[in-house]
Amino acid sequence: MTTSRGRQIVLAARPKGKPELTDFRLEETAIPTPAAGQLLLGVQYLSLDPYMRGRLARTGWRTHALSDGTGLRKLDPAAAPVTTALGVLGMPGFTAYGGLRVIGKPQPGETVVVAAASGPVGSLVGQLAQFAGARAVGIGGGPQKCAFLRGELRFDAAVDHRAPDFPARLAAACPHGIDVYFENVGGTIWQAVLPLLNDFARVPVSGLIAQYNGVPDGDGTDGLPATMRQILSKRLTIRGFINYDFAAEHYADFLREVGAGIAAGRIRYREDIVDGLENAPGAFIGMLEGRNFGKLIVRVAAYDRRGT
Amino acid sequence: MTTSRGRQIVLAARPKGKPELTDFRLEETAIPTPAAGQLLLGVQYLSLDPYMRGRLARTGWRTHALSDGTGLRKLDPAAAPVTTALGVLGMPGFTAYGGLRVIGKPQPGETVVVAAASGPVGSLVGQLAQFAGARAVGIGGGPQKCAFLRGELRFDAAVDHRAPDFPARLAAACPHGIDVYFENVGGTIWQAVLPLLNDFARVPVSGLIAQYNGVPDGDGTDGLPATMRQILSKRLTIRGFINYDFAAEHYADFLREVGAGIAAGRIRYREDIVDGLENAPGAFIGMLEGRNFGKLIVRVAAYDRRGT
Repeated sequence: MTTSRGRQIVLAARPKGKPELTDFRLEETAIPTPAAGQLLLGVQYLSLDPYMRGRLARTGWRTHALSDGTGLRKLDPAAAPVTTALGVLGMPGFTAYGGLRVIGKPQPGETVVVAAASGPVGSLVGQLAQFAGARAVGIGGGPQKCAFLRGELRFDAAVDHRAPDFPARLAAACPHGIDVYFENVGGTIWQAVLPLLNDFARVPVSGLIAQYNGVPDGDGTDGLPATMRQILSKRLTIRGFINYDFAAEHYADFLREVGAGIAAGRIRYREDIVDGLENAPGAFIGMLEGRNFGKLIVRVAAYDRRGT
Repeated sequence: MTTSRGRQIVLAARPKGKPELTDFRLEETAIPTPAAGQLLLGVQYLSLDPYMRGRLARTGWRTHALSDGTGLRKLDPAAAPVTTALGVLGMPGFTAYGGLRVIGKPQPGETVVVAAASGPVGSLVGQLAQFAGARAVGIGGGPQKCAFLRGELRFDAAVDHRAPDFPARLAAACPHGIDVYFENVGGTIWQAVLPLLNDFARVPVSGLIAQYNGVPDGDGTDGLPATMRQILSKRLTIRGFINYDFAAEHYADFLREVGAGIAAGRIRYREDIVDGLENAPGAFIGMLEGRNFGKLIVRVAAYDRRGT
């Protein structure tokens, strides 16, 4: 790094509900000096992920950081583009892999539905479901993402959740019901999925992006009794997880299998790269509204090089 | 049987919401004549169970029935009282056994909570939890049932859900949180349990008696988002089941283990026996309101003998 000053995004205010640009502030900082046994990290790419909404008080959006090496992974740029370590070959990809492998367990001929399907978790869920012999149905926001799901990612069907008749379209796309619903959105999409679930359906819950801003989106009725009735009468399994719960047992398999799939071109992915640390807040806010298209990454170092 | 006429309870009206006595009618019928390969059954005891609320259109509350033998089980009155085949050694008992064995999986030192704990499912859940080395906390309706849970059934703690400070009492009875909540009630009890669940808690769902009458009992807010958030952040497993889902794999073990426990006096149970088929509707309505105390059974044949 050639900059003499670092930069970081700090919270100007703790967002209540939907975060706004004015909740964030870019500030300069001294580049920290590593002590014995520490590394100074120069950030090249920064990952923006929905789960960060719950942890905004602790954001680590900065150009430099110190590390004692824990959790660092050396990447091989020849094996896959380094940005994939933040997406399809990183935590989002492993969320898809672990949730399907441990909870969803798609079987040949079954139907797997995933929302936010053009994102880094959803796009891998659909492709892994197909590798297991299941039908993959993706839910996306708008016709462009749905075309991408059907065309580039080769999902069996894609349904636009913004369509006014979304529940009917989802039902039409799942003529044999739903056996696995990979839940990463919550809210109204769940209401459309619930009546389509088959007996013994599995619902891995990895995220609830529609709920992260704390804005209720229902019609004011209590959705819990209906959900509990369906859990009982259809013998559903609903299970929340965080990808690292499964890391000890499955992370090595994930890197090997998905890495090979990427190298062979069997697994496809899309990245949405935003330039400049100062654009992280806007990109993050957009992501919570579904405005990104693919895995959202901020290129930090390249901008710094241009800017100094 | 010495009666020349049979009797049966029929629906006079399909109950909307809470069933009423006037929804039922007792009528005389001809005793059916078995064809070749059929048996004529004379009903001695009739089981009343909460799940029947959902199937009232098809009630089989009668003194006689024909059978081709399918599903019949020959009981040994010397091994255990025959009424146990309707309770602790029957479907309710197996619901407790299968739900814990397959889904709840209580571990030594964990806390297992069950509602309707003096009933045939709940009372066995608590005792099996203790055999597994877990702490058993029962939720009961009223001080008499709670005293029975602590005294006769030797639960580690019992909490009266009718107490105005029930959520605080439940929290006090579970100082290390809840690892398994055996859900057979639903409604407001779930709201008190949810915040106490530990990470990786398991929730077998075998019944929702509080919801069967279709009467909402919440405060009008949507309980689903909070439940989904807890499922995600605590990595809960919520899984519905019906006991016969597990029969092929576990029913023989159940009969052997629980049968031995009853014979040895290690497993205790309570039955609430009502005399006379004509009293079945009132007893059933009372059960949905928690007025029974123990496994609810109607003695059919004894009354018929007295009445003829």
